[in-house]
Amino acid sequence: MPIPTQQALQLIRRLSRGLPFDVLAQRLAPRPPEKVAPRPEVPFPREWSRESWEQRLAFFEGQGAALPHLAGRVPYPDPAALQGNIEAYLGMTWTPTGVIGPLRVNGLHAHGDYYVPLATSEGALVASYHRGARLITAAGGASALTSAEQVQRAPGFAFESMAESVQFTAWVNGEVDHFHALVEQSSKHAQLLEVHTHLVANYCILIFAFYTGDASGQNMVTFCTEKICEDIIARTPVKPHHWFLEANMSGDKKANALTFLLTRGRKVEAEVILPRPLVEHGLRTTPERMCDYWRMSFVGGAQTGSVGVSGHIANGLAAVYLATGQDVACISEASVGVTRLELTDSGDLYCGITMPNVICGTVGGGTRLPTAQECLRLMGCEGEGKASMFAEVIATTCLAGEISIVGALCAGEFALAHARFARGKNP
Amino acid sequence: MPIPTQQALQLIRRLSRGLPFDVLAQRLAPRPPEKVAPRPEVPFPREWSRESWEQRLAFFEGQGAALPHLAGRVPYPDPAALQGNIEAYLGMTWTPTGVIGPLRVNGLHAHGDYYVPLATSEGALVASYHRGARLITAAGGASALTSAEQVQRAPGFAFESMAESVQFTAWVNGEVDHFHALVEQSSKHAQLLEVHTHLVANYCILIFAFYTGDASGQNMVTFCTEKICEDIIARTPVKPHHWFLEANMSGDKKANALTFLLTRGRKVEAEVILPRPLVEHGLRTTPERMCDYWRMSFVGGAQTGSVGVSGHIANGLAAVYLATGQDVACISEASVGVTRLELTDSGDLYCGITMPNVICGTVGGGTRLPTAQECLRLMGCEGEGKASMFAEVIATTCLAGEISIVGALCAGEFALAHARFARGKNP
Amino acid sequence: MPIPTQQALQLIRRLSRGLPFDVLAQRLAPRPPEKVAPRPEVPFPREWSRESWEQRLAFFEGQGAALPHLAGRVPYPDPAALQGNIEAYLGMTWTPTGVIGPLRVNGLHAHGDYYVPLATSEGALVASYHRGARLITAAGGASALTSAEQVQRAPGFAFESMAESVQFTAWVNGEVDHFHALVEQSSKHAQLLEVHTHLVANYCILIFAFYTGDASGQNMVTFCTEKICEDIIARTPVKPHHWFLEANMSGDKKANALTFLLTRGRKVEAEVILPRPLVEHGLRTTPERMCDYWRMSFVGGAQTGSVGVSGHIANGLAAVYLATGQDVACISEASVGVTRLELTDSGDLYCGITMPNVICGTVGGGTRLPTAQECLRLMGCEGEGKASMFAEVIATTCLAGEISIVGALCAGEFALAHARFARGKNP
Amino acid sequence: MPIPTQQALQLIRRLSRGLPFDVLAQRLAPRPPEKVAPRPEVPFPREWSRESWEQRLAFFEGQGAALPHLAGRVPYPDPAALQGNIEAYLGMTWTPTGVIGPLRVNGLHAHGDYYVPLATSEGALVASYHRGARLITAAGGASALTSAEQVQRAPGFAFESMAESVQFTAWVNGEVDHFHALVEQSSKHAQLLEVHTHLVANYCILIFAFYTGDASGQNMVTFCTEKICEDIIARTPVKPHHWFLEANMSGDKKANALTFLLTRGRKVEAEVILPRPLVEHGLRTTPERMCDYWRMSFVGGAQTGSVGVSGHIANGLAAVYLATGQDVACISEASVGVTRLELTDSGDLYCGITMPNVICGTVGGGTRLPTAQECLRLMGCEGEGKASMFAEVIATTCLAGEISIVGALCAGEFALAHARFARGKNP
Repeated sequence: MPIPTQQALQLIRRLSRGLPFDVLAQRLAPRPPEKVAPRPEVPFPREWSRESWEQRLAFFEGQGAALPHLAGRVPYPDPAALQGNIEAYLGMTWTPTGVIGPLRVNGLHAHGDYYVPLATSEGALVASYHRGARLITAAGGASALTSAEQVQRAPGFAFESMAESVQFTAWVNGEVDHFHALVEQSSKHAQLLEVHTHLVANYCILIFAFYTGDASGQNMVTFCTEKICEDIIARTPVKPHHWFLEANMSGDKKANALTFLLTRGRKVEAEVILPRPLVEHGLRTTPERMCDYWRMSFVGGAQTGSVGVSGHIANGLAAVYLATGQDVACISEASVGVTRLELTDSGDLYCGITMPNVICGTVGGGTRLPTAQECLRLMGCEGEGKASMFAEVIATTCLAGEISIVGALCAGEFALAHARFARGKNP
Repeated sequence: MPIPTQQALQLIRRLSRGLPFDVLAQRLAPRPPEKVAPRPEVPFPREWSRESWEQRLAFFEGQGAALPHLAGRVPYPDPAALQGNIEAYLGMTWTPTGVIGPLRVNGLHAHGDYYVPLATSEGALVASYHRGARLITAAGGASALTSAEQVQRAPGFAFESMAESVQFTAWVNGEVDHFHALVEQSSKHAQLLEVHTHLVANYCILIFAFYTGDASGQNMVTFCTEKICEDIIARTPVKPHHWFLEANMSGDKKANALTFLLTRGRKVEAEVILPRPLVEHGLRTTPERMCDYWRMSFVGGAQTGSVGVSGHIANGLAAVYLATGQDVACISEASVGVTRLELTDSGDLYCGITMPNVICGTVGGGTRLPTAQECLRLMGCEGEGKASMFAEVIATTCLAGEISIVGALCAGEFALAHARFARGKNP
Repeated sequence: MPIPTQQALQLIRRLSRGLPFDVLAQRLAPRPPEKVAPRPEVPFPREWSRESWEQRLAFFEGQGAALPHLAGRVPYPDPAALQGNIEAYLGMTWTPTGVIGPLRVNGLHAHGDYYVPLATSEGALVASYHRGARLITAAGGASALTSAEQVQRAPGFAFESMAESVQFTAWVNGEVDHFHALVEQSSKHAQLLEVHTHLVANYCILIFAFYTGDASGQNMVTFCTEKICEDIIARTPVKPHHWFLEANMSGDKKANALTFLLTRGRKVEAEVILPRPLVEHGLRTTPERMCDYWRMSFVGGAQTGSVGVSGHIANGLAAVYLATGQDVACISEASVGVTRLELTDSGDLYCGITMPNVICGTVGGGTRLPTAQECLRLMGCEGEGKASMFAEVIATTCLAGEISIVGALCAGEFALAHARFARGKNP
Repeated sequence: MPIPTQQALQLIRRLSRGLPFDVLAQRLAPRPPEKVAPRPEVPFPREWSRESWEQRLAFFEGQGAALPHLAGRVPYPDPAALQGNIEAYLGMTWTPTGVIGPLRVNGLHAHGDYYVPLATSEGALVASYHRGARLITAAGGASALTSAEQVQRAPGFAFESMAESVQFTAWVNGEVDHFHALVEQSSKHAQLLEVHTHLVANYCILIFAFYTGDASGQNMVTFCTEKICEDIIARTPVKPHHWFLEANMSGDKKANALTFLLTRGRKVEAEVILPRPLVEHGLRTTPERMCDYWRMSFVGGAQTGSVGVSGHIANGLAAVYLATGQDVACISEASVGVTRLELTDSGDLYCGITMPNVICGTVGGGTRLPTAQECLRLMGCEGEGKASMFAEVIATTCLAGEISIVGALCAGEFALAHARFARGKNP
């Protein structure tokens, strides 16, 4: 994270939900397909006929997930229903949406075989993620875990002098209990988790971190922070020369080292061990070659001064975000992560991903839109109590994409895959 | 950029298109509304009735930009037509799409009053960008300029020893003319601009930079680089131990310092001087206060270790990208930039934005999709020869958003704006 | 920092030392030279004769700070006395050492007029810092404040699976009280302040932060962390596959965003307001011009992807570190900071510096060496209880250097200064 | 680097010095001790008696490298001789100086067995680097190679508008030949290598890169850039509103992504393959364990947002810099690098280091000082024509330090080494 002890202990309590840790190990353990049969494959993933489309729709309808809006079988909602999501409304942008799965996730919150809708116009993307999902499922599924959950807002206060900013800092830190109470009164969902103080000479920048339940929470933290700031301004013994509700330290919509380390949204990890034969047959390469790739790409990426080092997390992430009504502008910060491949002592391939900025919601915002609702329901992630499950499915989907792209690069099939799918012809 | 002299001279020739530089100054100069009347305002931007919707559609149809797909008045395309954009197709994700404008751009390529479609589910976004657009137009429009244009692919080669990687490096640098010829044979559109060599002990990572015309170009550079690599492997006097088509130094889908400095896609600048009365009446604050904000937010942002420092570029960028069929996963890298506010000697507000990674296309990829076609046409940016115009409109749109959000933060209206638009009620 | 509330409250208690905050304001307030006469100037700072040298030595001897080792009047210590500082000893490297001052500091810990020894071979450096010190003193001195004080060590543990790393993380966080006790037994000086947990799939990296009193503390934290790790390994319910005492997250000897934000060593702030006439006469420029410079250099620096943004902190810092026996390799991390210049409402120049990684000691390590002892004594910073005072003098010295270099760049005298002093001629 | 083709071709010509590349391979190849006997070991490296000191001095005197100043056997130079290196001179700071070696380097410029003086007060440092040097020598020496060589200065120009900054940019790029001529007239040593243009709205920042021969060159590039700027200001068709000789993009004294990638000073690589038995006996660990360490520490380091990822380069670098009269403030930028450990196909340990910012000189500045002269002579690196040799010895020394510290961390001896050497007792 890194997270300090007090916060870690709170987190552990919330996340373990009373489970002892050996039960957790069981919950995260692989479930090989030969022991627990996976849900059926998406039908005809590489066909583009109207029939194959209808068979896919029927397949999901048969599983209780009808997709009439996605399928274009019902008209648009009334514009009035879109107030709160759009202004100067013209209509709906259409983004083609495919599906991958089953993707087996053995997560703390997500536990099952998931179908994941991906909205994109980039050919080959769905095919590549689907390949990764098949491998993960064949390996018994990926472990997944949400740890930290928080969203920040960072107001800044400027004073005549450092003596004042320090006095302010001291005063504010003594008022934190009061702020907790204020937040409790102001919001049904938000909880104030932590207040960080950042002193920069005569500036004092405060970073308020909130738990926002199953909403992505950016507006919630804005309103709560405004309440706190109004209270601060009313009561502070030293008046700022000027102050602003956000001083650009919340990490909102920006890849940055601070929230990469602190967590913005949810911090999610996923891992899977791919047995050597799966790598050899499924990816036409070897664990050793994939580790060679990882090493070179990690060194390459670290040298570019990127935030985190990974493959193409943004691709799958953007596609899930879009399909499910998330704020796609958050791709900026949410796509940072660390991917790691490693040879195990037994010659298999360890694959892990850490995504510390998975900002996502299953209620509110764009999730209310009709196709987003259908896509969330298809995943079993709609509504209250599902955001951490959703986050774990997202991270595992991204892990599938990392495995697939590295495999393609190692097998010399990276350009080929794009030639096959992205140019509109089946060679 | 920074760009070296040879490349700068090429660029200057391409960009100036034979114009002497005093003509350029005229082209970039403000055109005050009292001298050149702007195109009409988008009708009823803050109404959500079916009638207001239809009036907006009629308004654009009257201007020659019919929007039947966006409006949901024609059925989806046949799934077969989507091959190349999606696999395992389920249907279309709907994203509400609004419009701002007229936005006056006095750019090298974009010169006129533009309406800009924005696809988003985040309430208040369109309203905020619209406000910024009105201010820019009232100030006579923003200057805008595309400078560098390039997309990279970065294959990596690992050798037994540094002696070999150095020998390879020397050989490769002698073969660059040959690579140019290869690219000319392989692609109608791509031009090889530069080959950078990055030696890391026994690794040699090559960064091939291409001009990709009006396509965003990621697949184009993949195919061209593969051709070059095949040639390299066939002819190199020292064989690599292993090599990969991409070693994670192209900046693809990642905010990073390297391509922030080098340019990935297009580097675009935009600027406007807002006269003091516009700031006071249009934003209910002062130029001084906005400079106070800029200073604090720049210091705040720089400290977080972000790539570039700006406000909320990702918001407007994601919304234009989505509406026009761009690859939204590129928000990761494309949303980096530098925003700067400054008090002029005469007490007005200078506002500038630099966006070095505007990866965008007006042909190919998702731009072929029906709603994307309509949105590009609405902007006058569809088809060949329009990508730099499009990039300049994008940057100016983002500048509008920067002005509006800073204004809201300075006037203490940031939370209010979200309360008004993002919660589905008009207070 | 940013620092969380609990840690901030501890800090505030330690730093305020029982003072109410209005007393703090008094302590940090300027003391204009016309009210409190400064200590005398260093004699003949721009002469290089043997006589001027001897006058400077006599001047300090007269103030109780004899400098026989620095002056080369006593022989080297016996090599045996150097065990613990050097191996394979050949002799002593000589670095010319000058002095600046008086530098007036109105700090929480440092309060007075200081002479600061600077060891360097770079001509013009001492002259430039001396000029800055004169300006600060003429302005009544700089406020200065040490806030956070901590040094980290970051062991890493690798497990077979994420389930194990999570179980380990949970267990470790429950043992923190035990670690506190262990540290108390193991070290007279170290206090364990905080344990941060950083989970990266099947890795768990712990960041232990210690208060190390008046020692710079790197060895102290190594020994304490080893004790803790031995205890962890002996008692952990899940055994790591492998582990290391340091996993490269302590920030030791590296500029990095994490410890830039967290603090490594001491976080020190200093500020001064230079009245306009001082800028105009002392620096031959204007506050406006210096703010123009700040803006351009901050934007320039932020774009390079540097850690923090400042002028030339490393110059003065390295010179003080070297003169006082600090670990000069720490220049890597310690030279990061944020410098800010701003026009005040009354047209004067606000100058602030924040240095979050001032790792320094007044006991132990190289401070035992004879010339280091003399230099620390010259500053009144030798021995127990002086490290925070020392840190505040360092930061104020660096602030003096920032003011002077920006002034030179604004007055067009930057190259001239180097021509005058660095080429061995007095033009 | 990455470096563009034209610059790469120039470099290759300069560096290859007419050698065909198979000769280069021979020059970089290992020379096993059993074939080419190494120079003798430094006597009694772990003894602190006066006798052992004198034996070391005699040993070097016997090799033609008398060290009377280092040994304290001659008086200080006259203060007048120090003009150009110091102002307000007080005397000499003494830093204990040890020596390691022989260190076998098979470099393009450095080819032989080197003794390397290290000035430090950190116990264990010399012992640790010495251990690494022994291993490298036992493995036949390290290959080493200087590639890019350049120092930058980055003046910035602010205009009323972007139209002007663009016009200026175009004009400047057309004047580069003129600037080359100016530099030729102004300086005997400097060559202008490249001019990079960085446009940021109405700012134009120029990055001038110079070759500075055997001097570290910071002052040289300042004077040359000032000449160019005077010429620019005199002749530019568009006058800047304000301009400065440095806009904080030269990377001077700051770790930053730009010059990490571009090179500042010299870019030097070094590598060695340690046979498995050497790792097992010399470091009491295994190649596999060291690769485990590398992986964890690289992931750890990359996450901290450091510039480059390595072990403790700063330690050895600072010690060589100090002993040889380099500007130790440059540790800020010079200590960045990439260290890589890898298992070879035959089970040995590949160790490589890349240091792109080795700013160093063998003439001018602090190298004129008496102990620095002795230390440079001890290495065979004094005077004209030796800077690249010196840079290669530095990088190989740092590689030795990386090997030794990783070995200590893997063998669980990291704390022990510090206990043994750094606390002044031989346990």
